[in-house]
Amino acid sequence: MFESAELGHKISKEVWKKEIPELREGLLDAQLDLFQSRKFPVIILVAGVDCAGKGETVNLLNEWMDPRHVETHALRDLTDEELERPQMWRYWRVLPPKGKIGVFIGTWYSGPLVENVYGTIKNAELDQRLERIARFEKMLCDEGALVLKFWLHLSKDEQKKRLKLLEKDPKTRWRVTDTDWDHYKLYDKFRQVSERMLRTTSTAESPWTIVEGTDPRYRYLTIGKAILNAMRQRLDAVDPPRHEEPIPPILPTIDNLLILQTLDLTKSLKKSEFESELEKYQGKLNLLTRHPDFKKLSVVVAFEGNDAAGKGGSIRRIIQALDARQYRVIPVAAPTEEERAQPYMWRFWRNIPRKSRFAIFDRSWYGRVLVERVEGYCDRGDWMRAYGEINDFEEQMVRNRTVVVKFWLSISQDEQLRRFKEREKIGFKRFKITDEDWRNRDKWNEYEVAVCDMIDRTSTDIAPWTLVEANDKYYARIKVLKTLCERIEKALEKKSSG
Amino acid sequence: MFESAELGHKISKEVWKKEIPELREGLLDAQLDLFQSRKFPVIILVAGVDCAGKGETVNLLNEWMDPRHVETHALRDLTDEELERPQMWRYWRVLPPKGKIGVFIGTWYSGPLVENVYGTIKNAELDQRLERIARFEKMLCDEGALVLKFWLHLSKDEQKKRLKLLEKDPKTRWRVTDTDWDHYKLYDKFRQVSERMLRTTSTAESPWTIVEGTDPRYRYLTIGKAILNAMRQRLDAVDPPRHEEPIPPILPTIDNLLILQTLDLTKSLKKSEFESELEKYQGKLNLLTRHPDFKKLSVVVAFEGNDAAGKGGSIRRIIQALDARQYRVIPVAAPTEEERAQPYMWRFWRNIPRKSRFAIFDRSWYGRVLVERVEGYCDRGDWMRAYGEINDFEEQMVRNRTVVVKFWLSISQDEQLRRFKEREKIGFKRFKITDEDWRNRDKWNEYEVAVCDMIDRTSTDIAPWTLVEANDKYYARIKVLKTLCERIEKALEKKSSG
Repeated sequence: MFESAELGHKISKEVWKKEIPELREGLLDAQLDLFQSRKFPVIILVAGVDCAGKGETVNLLNEWMDPRHVETHALRDLTDEELERPQMWRYWRVLPPKGKIGVFIGTWYSGPLVENVYGTIKNAELDQRLERIARFEKMLCDEGALVLKFWLHLSKDEQKKRLKLLEKDPKTRWRVTDTDWDHYKLYDKFRQVSERMLRTTSTAESPWTIVEGTDPRYRYLTIGKAILNAMRQRLDAVDPPRHEEPIPPILPTIDNLLILQTLDLTKSLKKSEFESELEKYQGKLNLLTRHPDFKKLSVVVAFEGNDAAGKGGSIRRIIQALDARQYRVIPVAAPTEEERAQPYMWRFWRNIPRKSRFAIFDRSWYGRVLVERVEGYCDRGDWMRAYGEINDFEEQMVRNRTVVVKFWLSISQDEQLRRFKEREKIGFKRFKITDEDWRNRDKWNEYEVAVCDMIDRTSTDIAPWTLVEANDKYYARIKVLKTLCERIEKALEKKSSG
Repeated sequence: MFESAELGHKISKEVWKKEIPELREGLLDAQLDLFQSRKFPVIILVAGVDCAGKGETVNLLNEWMDPRHVETHALRDLTDEELERPQMWRYWRVLPPKGKIGVFIGTWYSGPLVENVYGTIKNAELDQRLERIARFEKMLCDEGALVLKFWLHLSKDEQKKRLKLLEKDPKTRWRVTDTDWDHYKLYDKFRQVSERMLRTTSTAESPWTIVEGTDPRYRYLTIGKAILNAMRQRLDAVDPPRHEEPIPPILPTIDNLLILQTLDLTKSLKKSEFESELEKYQGKLNLLTRHPDFKKLSVVVAFEGNDAAGKGGSIRRIIQALDARQYRVIPVAAPTEEERAQPYMWRFWRNIPRKSRFAIFDRSWYGRVLVERVEGYCDRGDWMRAYGEINDFEEQMVRNRTVVVKFWLSISQDEQLRRFKEREKIGFKRFKITDEDWRNRDKWNEYEVAVCDMIDRTSTDIAPWTLVEANDKYYARIKVLKTLCERIEKALEKKSSG
């Protein structure tokens, strides 16, 4: 979930200087239109890890916008007045009215997060509190509010660096408190709970946007543009029928740095290395499936990737290590008539394996947020809510001790072209290349954005994505096998799915 | 919540004979239209207390409908196959496709309910499980399914009678198991948990319908008609824009027996009785507010009732007993400009009192499901979701140790007419009667249905409605004062809101 926010996003001074005037003008215009039309209120939450620049971001927003129509609420300790009322009262009393913008720094998420990390409340109570928050936000959206939620993220190293830097400078030393260092020591726990929190409260109407906090220019520009985009979209919309859910747009990354592009596709293995590793990991996989505790597990593997990225080949290397009675390979193509008469996820539910079995999906439930999104087979609302449905689906499997392993096989455009041409030449491979493949290729960039969104929104602690550099088939197949072994091994070590 | 389902609803043989042919024909027609258009699947849940006739109801539905397009699922113990998959797998595998009807007896609600009553899972985990169910049902509705949920209710006495009757008859003796009697002993606990469950999972898209189970004809006819209505509405709808929430209709009670009509409006008090009781309860109320623990509580009183039912007079009798610094009376009329720029509930949130204070609302947040519903000031989706928002609101207050006391003051149409005329005659009362009052009177029946729906959907264990027979002002005022004292007394006895 935080992968894309640890890439080292940066905006240069030149780009910044070029972009800012237009952004500021746009924001002021949008604000004026909002105020004059009084169509809806805007509620902006700025949350995230300590020292990721929440305060500075809000300061800048205030600088950019007309202060008469923005109110900032940095709610910290409860006042006497607030202590005597229900928890949410402090937020109700400062909600922005239609036509205005309310920016919240200390949000309704801080309490549950900190209390769960410190063990004051257990997971079940955390979920209860998050559920109340979700109901509150749903009510706000139902009432027409535009709710924008930003999570500023820093990697562990980055947070440490930031804390030290602030401490060194006498002008900022006061900003680093003991609490900050205490939190830092709990970084991993914070990360894990934050992820659970973001996952359960990211809805189609009010999704979270995770923003890397390291580079201030990147942070400001991303948030500023996201706010402008969402406001503009709502302001310009023809009045939607009542109850049509207004779905804010997902903003493409502003510095064109996508996680897929950070993969080193030159990674490779020699044939001899491949052969020895293959033997090693196939043997290991086979052994693992005969572990006495393996009968308490089941394994679901999802393969996604560019066309011709080698999904089939990787799958074959897995099943070579398995007993034929133990696995099923499920190729996912256009849905059958029977499947079209059911909810989207039905055809994946029906293929959930029994204990000690494998279900290997050649393409998967992610089709909804990939091909269906890009080709427009379903509308924006459908694929936006699919992220939540997918996370629910995977969570239910994991709770039932299913090991969910997801691979994205990535090849370069050049490599794909080479493989397409090769396939056309070789008789027995010709069936593998169709007009559709060529058409998909034309939409390479759109697919790339969709894949990165998918990874950001569905790579979770319990069911992470593994990105596989697949220009070299040897390297890819070994990485797949090795990852699969590691995930099963880890699951066997756990006594229960807890 | 179960009040209306304990009134002794009945349908006579004559009415039954008259109504059934049309209903059956209607159901068959709807079924055929559904099958031919394959517009959506219908998912019918039949749940409720033991022996309330779930099985018989489903049998009859099967008899009435074309069996080729209905599938019944009475899921009990998990099979081997099911045990090895995630909890919801058993339901996914039998979901009806578009064009078909699936009837479920053992539903996804049974597990969480029974486990919480028997203490296997705590409240927080119950909420977690219910939340997952809500997400599942939301997904079904988002995918276009028509989800109809029926809860068959029996009062405690009625359940006992039913169990004994079944036991006496050799033909039905087998149906009563030890488990049934065990459950019966836990009736109160079951009732309380069921209520929590129904409250949190009754949404605008898939609300629960609570049906009294005592009289079979009433039960069958209510459910049959509700199914027909909901199917017909969806089948006949012009294709709604995607994402418009399809809201199933609330069915008016079919035997015209409304809870309001069961009130004995002849109840009265002599003036002398009134005076001594008034002194007694005003004194008591005053004492209670000076109890040392009262500073941990706050009190919110909501008055609703027919026009001229005497809300003002009752409120005056309360505040006479209080210190002026301790209470605020909040008259609720049309919202101000400031209030219109906020979510509907905002103007009530802003008036939540501090500890040891009273907020007395002369009309309340229930306006949304009364006047706004009847007069069409908001649309169906708005007032349907208001039930949930209202329950959330009251739950948050109660969790914060606010005593929430809600009165419905009920007078007869004749008594109202008398009072209107009187008001017109007496100079200083003339301001109290407006054209609007006369107009509201014309919609007496519509208001009556709305009030009964309101009671059914928002009278909860934690914030029950008190219906006050108010033709006699003396009687009404004493009942109000007495109830208020009792509720505060009970809250003082509790150490915490738990």
